[in-house]
Amino acid sequence: MQFQVTPDFITDLEQLIDQGDSARVKAILEDLHFADIAEIIDDLNLERAIFIIKLLDSETTSEALMELDEDQRDRILNELSPKEIADELEEMDTDDAADILNELPDILAQEVISNMGDEQHAEDIVDLLRYDENSAGGLMAKELVKVNENWTVTGCVSEMRAQAENVTRVHSIYVVDNQQKLKGRLSLKDLLTSAETTPIKDVYIPKVDYVNVNTSGEEVARVMRKYDLEAIPVVDELDRLVGRITIDDIVDFITEEAEKDYQLASGISQDVEANDSILDLTRARLPWLVLGLVGGIGAAAIMGQFESLFEEYAVLFLFTPLIAAMAGNVGVQSSAIIVQGIANDDLRGSISSRLLKEVLLAMLNGVILALLLLVYTYFAQGEILTSIAISTSLFCVIIVAGLIGTFVPLFLHKRGIDPALATGPFITTSNDIFGILIYFLLAKAIIGI
Amino acid sequence: MQFQVTPDFITDLEQLIDQGDSARVKAILEDLHFADIAEIIDDLNLERAIFIIKLLDSETTSEALMELDEDQRDRILNELSPKEIADELEEMDTDDAADILNELPDILAQEVISNMGDEQHAEDIVDLLRYDENSAGGLMAKELVKVNENWTVTGCVSEMRAQAENVTRVHSIYVVDNQQKLKGRLSLKDLLTSAETTPIKDVYIPKVDYVNVNTSGEEVARVMRKYDLEAIPVVDELDRLVGRITIDDIVDFITEEAEKDYQLASGISQDVEANDSILDLTRARLPWLVLGLVGGIGAAAIMGQFESLFEEYAVLFLFTPLIAAMAGNVGVQSSAIIVQGIANDDLRGSISSRLLKEVLLAMLNGVILALLLLVYTYFAQGEILTSIAISTSLFCVIIVAGLIGTFVPLFLHKRGIDPALATGPFITTSNDIFGILIYFLLAKAIIGI
Repeated sequence: MQFQVTPDFITDLEQLIDQGDSARVKAILEDLHFADIAEIIDDLNLERAIFIIKLLDSETTSEALMELDEDQRDRILNELSPKEIADELEEMDTDDAADILNELPDILAQEVISNMGDEQHAEDIVDLLRYDENSAGGLMAKELVKVNENWTVTGCVSEMRAQAENVTRVHSIYVVDNQQKLKGRLSLKDLLTSAETTPIKDVYIPKVDYVNVNTSGEEVARVMRKYDLEAIPVVDELDRLVGRITIDDIVDFITEEAEKDYQLASGISQDVEANDSILDLTRARLPWLVLGLVGGIGAAAIMGQFESLFEEYAVLFLFTPLIAAMAGNVGVQSSAIIVQGIANDDLRGSISSRLLKEVLLAMLNGVILALLLLVYTYFAQGEILTSIAISTSLFCVIIVAGLIGTFVPLFLHKRGIDPALATGPFITTSNDIFGILIYFLLAKAIIGI
Repeated sequence: MQFQVTPDFITDLEQLIDQGDSARVKAILEDLHFADIAEIIDDLNLERAIFIIKLLDSETTSEALMELDEDQRDRILNELSPKEIADELEEMDTDDAADILNELPDILAQEVISNMGDEQHAEDIVDLLRYDENSAGGLMAKELVKVNENWTVTGCVSEMRAQAENVTRVHSIYVVDNQQKLKGRLSLKDLLTSAETTPIKDVYIPKVDYVNVNTSGEEVARVMRKYDLEAIPVVDELDRLVGRITIDDIVDFITEEAEKDYQLASGISQDVEANDSILDLTRARLPWLVLGLVGGIGAAAIMGQFESLFEEYAVLFLFTPLIAAMAGNVGVQSSAIIVQGIANDDLRGSISSRLLKEVLLAMLNGVILALLLLVYTYFAQGEILTSIAISTSLFCVIIVAGLIGTFVPLFLHKRGIDPALATGPFITTSNDIFGILIYFLLAKAIIGI
């Protein structure tokens, strides 16, 4: 059904490239979708990738460039002249072009811009560079179809045709007033069925969802998902229509955010993928492991304080990994639910009501787990007092772990810090330490030593 | 900008509902978007929710029903008669109606279907019920605009107008032959600019991406994301056009999948959210905690085998939580990267090359971490032999943990099992046990006891 990039295909293509058979390479690639060409370029070494970029017209390569793996794209751009990069940007939508410029060193970006022929396009792109990448301004493109409310249907249709040339997909026709303020939108259906002399004022739909240039990317994604929008107009501080965001960019945004949260929860701190180099992967993984190491050393130090119990109550030490693991698991569960609730914007009630709920939940889970452990330890060790001490401590550790897991992400969020940071190794490590401390203190008190 | 559901708004509305002031409630809700109405209904108790559902016309409520929290929707449907449910389904797109029917008990679903007036619509819905929910057939809707390749442009336009009535958003016009086989698509632009007597055959674009009814949801999402599609046609086994999938459904699908993977990685086994009941949350969390408990008991049993070392080498026991935590962290990191690579379909190379890479990566991380630990333990304990034993064991444990984390998801995937199952508590627990076992065996061998 779809074209598949196979290893055989790549080998054949590499051979043709190495033979410098431009004609045949071109013939093979000509009919492919730019996303497939990007997949192919990702699989080639830099030299061959450049060969293809220089061979195909910039209409195709500009689209393919956007779909490339970021590392491969950086390497390729590095080999192109400012003029060649400018040619690629000319063919791109403004939002994509701005993303590319953001990836370049400042001096190079400046040179690329001054090499661009289409001044309006260049100006639009530079305009987009002002915005934070994670805001509606940073996500939007300048390409859109807009009409003035004072025009008539006829005037509109011809104007629209001209504008539509530059817009890949027309999602909506936006209506503005003389000050460029967003007034509403126009349905294609209404436009086609209205009399030619009707003023736009009389047919447009005044209700339109929009976002401000400063709206966060998460909020844009939430609004577009909630209202099932395929495009949303963006206005500036004066309510003037300045751009629009399309759903395909939001799909990419949602996917990237989900991957980032997933990686944070798994103790991976940078955006890496399985095919990255060992060095990149180490950079992303090592910091969390060092955190875990420090936590483990802390746990060892705490246990060292109770070393005098070794002789008589060795059994307590056998259960420290269990206590640490349970504290970690409960903490991760609680924090994950809170982080998701925050992301979906559907947490209701105050922090204290959340904590109360978590306590009840932890008590329910804790009672069941503590009873199971009590039965096991009693039958395995035959010591009722130590069994009670271990299982009671587990019960308390679960409650504290749940509270920490609930409180920390809520607290971070209140402070404007990404709550996803508080998942994974962070919560596991801190809960390990607290868990073990509580465990020994309580067990000691219960046994009465 | 957007309408916001505030607690005050809800309180006021509840008062009006309790006073039975239908007119004012209707006036307030009339101008709201169905997604906002859904948010409001989610916040009301069942009785008031039903009041609103019965008050508003089914065109609005049918859309709102789809946006409701699943639990609230089930409660509401439970209170409606088969005829009332049928009225709602009449207004829905076929894919949404099929989803609702899938949620109902079989007998009720049967009654609802027989209460539907529009037989074609009912037939389309029943047709969709045949497909697996996670396949293209289960995701598609029957609503689409299609034209026959043998028609002319004029014939086409009038036919399209009629069809478009039933389709919320026209993404593409699909072209079929007399056997209903998908031939290509038609751009609105071409249609409007071609002479009226031109046969469709001469203007349509024969290249069109499509999927088969049996294509998995993940694959549909991948294709639509890769090619930036807003809708994709679905064909049956005989290549006949039978439906289409729109990007908003795929956005929901991607979000749900990401949430599911995130929850699995956090030890939450069912689709729950922060606002669910304590019982539902316990059902989702307890199984993983029991797994952790069993793992902890296993770890205790293993440590018990080495109890004779207590007296002389108590220090070994102090570092078991550290070893367990590091084994867990490394395992989660490795498995998360593999699970994401599988999800994005960008894992290249064989299983053995993956494992080799993970070994190298683990060795690099392991050397750094082991050296750090060696320095610490030596200065803290002053015993060079035990320090070497502990840090060497850590090094080996990290390698084994990385291998398990890499191998298990790859293995599950090969077997057709969701690799995300192998993240979170599963990997942590198994790595805890293996880690502690390796640790004691190695430490014993190194110290020579």
